[in-house]
Amino acid sequence: MAWNGLIDAYRNYLPVTEKTPRCTLLEGNTPLIRSENLSKELDLELYFKYDGLNPTGSFKDRGMVMAVAKAVEEGSKTIMCASTGNTSASAAAYAARCGLDCVVLIPDGNIAMGKLAQALIYGAKVIAIDGNFDNALDIVKEITNEYPITLVNSLNPYRIEGQKTGAYEVSDVLGDAPDYLAIPVGNAGNITAYWKGFKDYYEQKKNKQLPTLLGFQAEGASPIVHNRVFEEPKTVATAIQIGNPASWTKATAALEESKGRIDSVTDEEILQAQKWLASKEGIFAEPASAASLAGVIKQHKQGLLEKGARVVCVLTGNGLKDPNAALSQIVNPQKIRAEKQAVLDVIYGK
Amino acid sequence: MAWNGLIDAYRNYLPVTEKTPRCTLLEGNTPLIRSENLSKELDLELYFKYDGLNPTGSFKDRGMVMAVAKAVEEGSKTIMCASTGNTSASAAAYAARCGLDCVVLIPDGNIAMGKLAQALIYGAKVIAIDGNFDNALDIVKEITNEYPITLVNSLNPYRIEGQKTGAYEVSDVLGDAPDYLAIPVGNAGNITAYWKGFKDYYEQKKNKQLPTLLGFQAEGASPIVHNRVFEEPKTVATAIQIGNPASWTKATAALEESKGRIDSVTDEEILQAQKWLASKEGIFAEPASAASLAGVIKQHKQGLLEKGARVVCVLTGNGLKDPNAALSQIVNPQKIRAEKQAVLDVIYGK
Repeated sequence: MAWNGLIDAYRNYLPVTEKTPRCTLLEGNTPLIRSENLSKELDLELYFKYDGLNPTGSFKDRGMVMAVAKAVEEGSKTIMCASTGNTSASAAAYAARCGLDCVVLIPDGNIAMGKLAQALIYGAKVIAIDGNFDNALDIVKEITNEYPITLVNSLNPYRIEGQKTGAYEVSDVLGDAPDYLAIPVGNAGNITAYWKGFKDYYEQKKNKQLPTLLGFQAEGASPIVHNRVFEEPKTVATAIQIGNPASWTKATAALEESKGRIDSVTDEEILQAQKWLASKEGIFAEPASAASLAGVIKQHKQGLLEKGARVVCVLTGNGLKDPNAALSQIVNPQKIRAEKQAVLDVIYGK
Repeated sequence: MAWNGLIDAYRNYLPVTEKTPRCTLLEGNTPLIRSENLSKELDLELYFKYDGLNPTGSFKDRGMVMAVAKAVEEGSKTIMCASTGNTSASAAAYAARCGLDCVVLIPDGNIAMGKLAQALIYGAKVIAIDGNFDNALDIVKEITNEYPITLVNSLNPYRIEGQKTGAYEVSDVLGDAPDYLAIPVGNAGNITAYWKGFKDYYEQKKNKQLPTLLGFQAEGASPIVHNRVFEEPKTVATAIQIGNPASWTKATAALEESKGRIDSVTDEEILQAQKWLASKEGIFAEPASAASLAGVIKQHKQGLLEKGARVVCVLTGNGLKDPNAALSQIVNPQKIRAEKQAVLDVIYGK
């Protein structure tokens, strides 16, 4: 049967009423790819939940479809967020799809235009302010509080409701929760959402077990690991470059309940994992996504994962979102004469 | 039931033997997104087959999984292609996945490094030659003819076999072939493949009708439309910037059999369609993909499409493959002070 999107597939598990419009870009239903090669090296039953194949290239679409559908249901005409990356792309796409206006506030400065290509082409009103992300979010909160504009940053509770469907999909394919769920942690909404989803299925007796959560932050942006705010978070994994996560306490609670662990990985480990994921499995994910695999490799080295354990790594975004990060670790192609022999010499390493 | 990739789903329609390995990145099963807004403007029942959500971001994965699986079956250890874009990305990914070496020959010169990011991170051996694409392809043909290396350019017949699954998927969702199938035409392999797929389902009585094919080339690269080779094809839609299509005669035959039409669209029409697709439907496709919608709009204006006709536009690649093309048509974001009132003035157009 055809896939009709998350709200249709999981309406019994979502805050959906008869009046909730069936907004969809056919998000969700993303591949759970079984590892061919790394699983053998690590002696694990390893899978990758490749959420980079959502309509706008990241897991944000799961939460955004829900947030935008509810905004439409509540009669809102405009949505708004502060963002420099995946959230703004997703908000802009669903606003376009559902006939809403979308306003994106971005901090001025070090923001690559490429990151905004999506929000701009989807037709959002993009406003750059002379300030940082926190300033942008403060203004968004004030305006959405006073004007008839819906906030769609992660403070919007429907975001996490939609995002928990990732856990349902993993369970639907595996027939149960995995032993471990490894996930990048930035704003900490996704780890919170996955835990909620696994608990739903467990309580409904659709799953027999709950997974152990393994959360991984980038070393330069690891507030939960070190239990302190990072004033100036810094990592190559820009999607998790967050110093004061919005869902901090919820994520900590989820980690405790699941008897899970949170740890950090270095930028070097992240980029190495990104490279391995591409060159050993054929999957190109953005650096933040690779933090989940980097963390699994680290815990494997530390002997913390039993042999044969079933592990799902959540890959949150598509590598095409940030090709420069990939290129930074790659040697330029060799350049030679347009002659057969010259090419053969390179191939056969003369 | 979980999706296990094209070879598993359509093995009865593919040249698969018991020895064909089940290579997969869970390609295919891409969304057929119903148009929400353009369908009303055009008075059509319009759908978009969004093949940009394949594992490497383009329809090439459909043919490549088949070509690589057969290469493995035949004992090959290395695959090779000449390419500057989507083909090399797909070849590199499936080679990585299936444990083969991959050699990509690229013409030196005007090639953006970004286009190669995928092939490089997937671990292909990328060789730049001091020559053009034709030189590169000639060398690839010579070498794969003489050495135990499998050619995976579109001359490899398994490519079209895999690609025809796009037609199966469209039919499986709609319950029949659409009235019209609108598709970008570059090397002309995909239109050939779709026609083959629709004929298969029609002959097997899975479909009641055959579609009318509508092929669209970019004006600056429209050899089939004008029935002459374009020595120096030029278009913003680089994925269909081809002057002498490999599947020219097959495509012409398919167009005739289907009583279809082939026409050209300008770069301006392509970019406008790309913008509309994003801002009215929430779908970001690469420029070449938008040629299908641009063509439908053109034929609608000419009164060639009956009201209410069921039309599927094939969107061959992800917009994230080429963000610069999107940015070229967009106004930079406004920059203002980090103050609530300044932001409100922009939102409410003071």
